[in-house]
Amino acid sequence: MNNPAATIAAVSTPPGKGGVALIRLSGEEAFDIAGRVFVPKNKKPFADLPLRMQVYGDIYLGKDRIDDGMMTKFKAPYSYTGEDTVEFTCHGGMLITKLVLESLFTAGAVPAAPGEYTRRAFMNGKLGLTEAEAIGTLLDAKSFDQVKLTSTEGRSRLSAALAEVRSDLLSVMSSIYARIDYPDEDLGEFSDDDAARILIAEKEKIEKLIRSYRTGKAVTEGIPTVICGKPNVGKSSLYNLLLGENAAIVTDTPGTTRDVLSGTVSLGRVMLDLFDTAGIRETDDPIEKIGVSRSRDAMEKATLILAVFDTSRPLDAEDLEIIGAVKRQNAEAIAVLNKTDLPTKIDVGEIRKYFANVVSLSALKEDTGELSAAVNRLFTDEKLVIGQDAVIFSARQNAALMKARDCIATAIEAYADGFAADAASSDVELALGAIGEIDGKAVCDEVVNDIFSKFCVGK
Amino acid sequence: MNNPAATIAAVSTPPGKGGVALIRLSGEEAFDIAGRVFVPKNKKPFADLPLRMQVYGDIYLGKDRIDDGMMTKFKAPYSYTGEDTVEFTCHGGMLITKLVLESLFTAGAVPAAPGEYTRRAFMNGKLGLTEAEAIGTLLDAKSFDQVKLTSTEGRSRLSAALAEVRSDLLSVMSSIYARIDYPDEDLGEFSDDDAARILIAEKEKIEKLIRSYRTGKAVTEGIPTVICGKPNVGKSSLYNLLLGENAAIVTDTPGTTRDVLSGTVSLGRVMLDLFDTAGIRETDDPIEKIGVSRSRDAMEKATLILAVFDTSRPLDAEDLEIIGAVKRQNAEAIAVLNKTDLPTKIDVGEIRKYFANVVSLSALKEDTGELSAAVNRLFTDEKLVIGQDAVIFSARQNAALMKARDCIATAIEAYADGFAADAASSDVELALGAIGEIDGKAVCDEVVNDIFSKFCVGK
Repeated sequence: MNNPAATIAAVSTPPGKGGVALIRLSGEEAFDIAGRVFVPKNKKPFADLPLRMQVYGDIYLGKDRIDDGMMTKFKAPYSYTGEDTVEFTCHGGMLITKLVLESLFTAGAVPAAPGEYTRRAFMNGKLGLTEAEAIGTLLDAKSFDQVKLTSTEGRSRLSAALAEVRSDLLSVMSSIYARIDYPDEDLGEFSDDDAARILIAEKEKIEKLIRSYRTGKAVTEGIPTVICGKPNVGKSSLYNLLLGENAAIVTDTPGTTRDVLSGTVSLGRVMLDLFDTAGIRETDDPIEKIGVSRSRDAMEKATLILAVFDTSRPLDAEDLEIIGAVKRQNAEAIAVLNKTDLPTKIDVGEIRKYFANVVSLSALKEDTGELSAAVNRLFTDEKLVIGQDAVIFSARQNAALMKARDCIATAIEAYADGFAADAASSDVELALGAIGEIDGKAVCDEVVNDIFSKFCVGK
Repeated sequence: MNNPAATIAAVSTPPGKGGVALIRLSGEEAFDIAGRVFVPKNKKPFADLPLRMQVYGDIYLGKDRIDDGMMTKFKAPYSYTGEDTVEFTCHGGMLITKLVLESLFTAGAVPAAPGEYTRRAFMNGKLGLTEAEAIGTLLDAKSFDQVKLTSTEGRSRLSAALAEVRSDLLSVMSSIYARIDYPDEDLGEFSDDDAARILIAEKEKIEKLIRSYRTGKAVTEGIPTVICGKPNVGKSSLYNLLLGENAAIVTDTPGTTRDVLSGTVSLGRVMLDLFDTAGIRETDDPIEKIGVSRSRDAMEKATLILAVFDTSRPLDAEDLEIIGAVKRQNAEAIAVLNKTDLPTKIDVGEIRKYFANVVSLSALKEDTGELSAAVNRLFTDEKLVIGQDAVIFSARQNAALMKARDCIATAIEAYADGFAADAASSDVELALGAIGEIDGKAVCDEVVNDIFSKFCVGK
């Protein structure tokens, strides 16, 4: 992360080739630096160009006129970052974009770190931490549920739920302090019983938010999912079916897949980071050996394992080896009985001994309904309505809420044990602090760094 | 391509994830459509929002508030296309961008065809065809030479050269017509000899431009280049060396590469579209067989073949089969003697019998200088200075110039044969027409379609 006084520049649009690219320059010297590289076609002095207005001109790298495009000046605090900002829209080729950026560096800007624009926006009070996290997730959104959860509407539902808890806790706090400060006056405030009742209600609200994390996580983060099985049970066919494309080469030859292939797919509301692996078996082929070892590594990192079996063949020693390998992992597992289009020869009862979740499918018939239902049951709360219910979606939010819940539980106990209200007050204060962390009102630099380090450069 | 009356919308920034994305809406109804989906935070009526000014607001898909971002109105003809245009800068996630675009379609826009914005700009007289072609190439530019050739500066050099030829030919034409119309007056115009002299000079200028095409093509288009050879001579090592990355898996096992891998790399000024192929040999392995057959297909499409030999092993029957296969292709070929770090056992004299271009290298020593020199000798004119000399870079420009040259040659012959000037005039007129085609002043729809179909959507 750069010194906050530095003027930073980066391409804010996606990398790659497009019609246009947008380059952002933000910081105290933004106007000076832009004035060194940009010459408006109307030849007016840079300082005289109007704010927020798109102006057409040429961009220079040293003495070379390298591109023409639009430039807009934003005066602090009326910009995304809250600082003086200049935006350039130049031609969207990869190299030309890089050269325009280079011209800004030559003129005095420094490369923006990942997420540094949004971090500066946060530092300047333009947005809260939950909102920043939501934007980070929104940019990665691959399903409509992810968008609903993290876009303008979803963000405000979560903020509202947090604000409500915060305000209720504040009212308990102020009542406690009022009674401590003015013990003899009737201030119309809560009795201890009232306060305890409110705290119990707030604890339930917080627990509801905590419970939403399971769903929020499944919707927003990909669940690392490994497809495993002995050679030639149809792992790559299942992979292609879920991804909806011909990504993996499928042949009748066992051991066709060597590398670990990966792709992201949403199954119902759950995002899966899907890994197709080489079939696990003893082998002397040195290249297949590397593949098998990579398969084992992938399994160790999995949160969900789809163990594929061929129903048209009886269970054999290789299958049992796979089952053993799956059971050794600390992951959810679903047994996928593949090739149901062929006569069943496998002992399904035997499989059920090892797997609580067993689904049948024919990768050729392209019906993933049963598998999707099993996955969604495992990872989401189906009663939650995404975009309407407040849903938390980051481990950080979850940890802060658990802390708040524990503090409130201690406060409730204090009331139950008949301690005076001031014994509870310090716990309620701690709970308020934890809630404050969620939106960044009271949070340490390290947490902030961690959040913004996940952003791409240019945001 | 849509009806010119349609209002078109597309994402103009590269596909993929970024901080922001830019969506363009262009056509008669652009303001109406934008007004239906965009609500400024200041709640002003859309019609009252100022032109060219970036305005912050919310974007709706039906009744759902899906994103917030900036919006700018451009009034015809002061826009890229020359039409009413609205630009949105929204969050740059792939899905959120798609949803914002969908909201514009729901509100009445139609998806823009590839290159349709630039095509409309051309139709509305905002730019010429050579410039449009240059922008198309600029967006793809992967080397600084490509940028220099097609960016603002390079484009103007070519336009200037074409304008000069055009104006000289026009002066000859007007002189011929003046003498036909007023045969008895001394108009101080050219004699037949003068005219012939000018035509000869113009023909030479045109031929110089035509000669520049070889270089322009090598700089701007990738030369389809296939690396071939028997198994285990180091094809993948050479591929990785040229690409500067570990793209292909390299092992000691012959037949490690199965798929045809490809990548683009600039070698000196020449762009290569490089294909690494499976080693060609007789094999019973069904998967390797597919690889070998794909290798042969790739060779047939190649413009340059890099035939790799292992200097540490004597030439054998498999090498000779490769040589035979290379010689059957209608492509330039360079023999690459690899593994020069090991003792030489190959008969270099024998190789020279079949290849005019032979270079030595050790893929391990990472020196591609000799190979680069050979490639640049084959495909470029080293005297041309890119960005300073006018260089043509499209087959269309080349064809039009050849037509112009042939017409002028006929006109010169007419003078040489002592025909009256009016015999030459029609040829000069045809030459002028051909030159006019280059910049689109006289060009048929088909050609225009062809040029813009190569653009990406959103440009």
